[in-house]
Amino acid sequence: MRWIRFSTNDTVQFGLLNDDDHVSPVRGDPFNGYEKTGQRLAFADVVLEVPVIPTTFYAAGMNYADHVLAMSRRTGVEAKLPTAADIGYRGNNALLAHGRDILVPADAGPRVQYEAELVVVIGKKAKGIEESEVPGVILGYTIGNDVSERDWQKSDRTFWRCKNTDTFKPMGPWIETQFDPSGAKTSIRLNGALQHEFDTEAMIFGVSHFISRMSRYLTLWPGDVIWMGTDGTSPDLQHGDVVDISISGLGSLRNRIIRVGHDRKALESPDKQEPR
Amino acid sequence: MRWIRFSTNDTVQFGLLNDDDHVSPVRGDPFNGYEKTGQRLAFADVVLEVPVIPTTFYAAGMNYADHVLAMSRRTGVEAKLPTAADIGYRGNNALLAHGRDILVPADAGPRVQYEAELVVVIGKKAKGIEESEVPGVILGYTIGNDVSERDWQKSDRTFWRCKNTDTFKPMGPWIETQFDPSGAKTSIRLNGALQHEFDTEAMIFGVSHFISRMSRYLTLWPGDVIWMGTDGTSPDLQHGDVVDISISGLGSLRNRIIRVGHDRKALESPDKQEPR
Repeated sequence: MRWIRFSTNDTVQFGLLNDDDHVSPVRGDPFNGYEKTGQRLAFADVVLEVPVIPTTFYAAGMNYADHVLAMSRRTGVEAKLPTAADIGYRGNNALLAHGRDILVPADAGPRVQYEAELVVVIGKKAKGIEESEVPGVILGYTIGNDVSERDWQKSDRTFWRCKNTDTFKPMGPWIETQFDPSGAKTSIRLNGALQHEFDTEAMIFGVSHFISRMSRYLTLWPGDVIWMGTDGTSPDLQHGDVVDISISGLGSLRNRIIRVGHDRKALESPDKQEPR
Repeated sequence: MRWIRFSTNDTVQFGLLNDDDHVSPVRGDPFNGYEKTGQRLAFADVVLEVPVIPTTFYAAGMNYADHVLAMSRRTGVEAKLPTAADIGYRGNNALLAHGRDILVPADAGPRVQYEAELVVVIGKKAKGIEESEVPGVILGYTIGNDVSERDWQKSDRTFWRCKNTDTFKPMGPWIETQFDPSGAKTSIRLNGALQHEFDTEAMIFGVSHFISRMSRYLTLWPGDVIWMGTDGTSPDLQHGDVVDISISGLGSLRNRIIRVGHDRKALESPDKQEPR
């Protein structure tokens, strides 16, 4: 099943996206129960919203060896692979739906980069669960782009603005409940050209390990999201660049980079951004 | 005005706490509008809940010079005062109401400590505001205890379990809308005995500076909370210890430490925990 969260006029609601590209809106939500309204909307007529606003927004950070090693080569700082599944945090203010523009503040440096990530969406309250129980508490998966400004990442004591500036956390397009990470590929295209591809599952610490370990100390709540980290590196993104992240089975998440203060009219309108 | 969030049976709602110790429940909430229900409840009959669940939970971390210097003397690590107002994050899972027990996991080390903090509660959506505009977006203030396990704080790559283990973030007892930090004192009592007292306003970066700077990059949402940091240091908390944090004008936040696996019956029942 594909859960979308969408708006029509001023109303935001959840719905199921059917194979025939029609949406079945629901009353309620995928976490606490729902019933179909009986309406049937054309997918083309709805505006996609971020598929869920989490209670807590978790992010693994460094979780693919090649990313850690490549960043080390770039920065000259010695590579340190994480030795334990220690989760981090992001801010809900920064979430952005598929198809919307990433707005880079005028005082940001040139090194604004993408990070393509698998996102786990928790479906059931969980505390103290074994790895074998983890699949039972996951609602599904989606895609995240952990947009990062590298100068602020270096200069600031925390990740507050390098990673949590408004619009820096695109997430979507929807939540797929039938996804199996094994064998999935994550692909990043920049203005249509393939930049990098990696095995989604090549994580240092996998989804079940992370969630089981987190749940020893933390209650996971329905709707919480966990961003699983990225592999490889990114070029510096330019005004007008369109970043498209696909994970096989999950569709694709596409967003354009706008540098605030740069001319927007000169850009071509992006194509109708169908998420697959 | 004093806003409380409280439960009666299975219902959680907001209410106003009147000077005569009666509660006026409301429909709605302090952020999006409300109306009094006309009911009148005795304060003694309601159960206090965390006064707000934020969209994003912010924390300043190091923001009082004496805390930074004292921690440096303890750890032997050179003191580094923050040079900019860089905000951090905490997890909503960890929030705990006034009067409830802080549950320290059985595998925690001996160095579990309190941190007494002023908490700002945002009332209005804000982006790009000047320092002079900050008071207009604040709903009010409350008290936080940034409970910290120092071994995990040292060993882990992030603050996930040292500061965000379930129950490690007591906040309350209520939101006071008339508070002025200038001249306020923060006092910490351990089992009734005064441990430490400091000028609440002696921050390295004040409330208006932090919020104005944050708002250059982040949209602040109604209900967001910002914990402003602590001064001084804490002894290691023992099973059964009761920590009471008062800020003049805000009441007091009291919680007991329970080490999971230790005998609970041997402890005296804490007094009826009136928050002032």
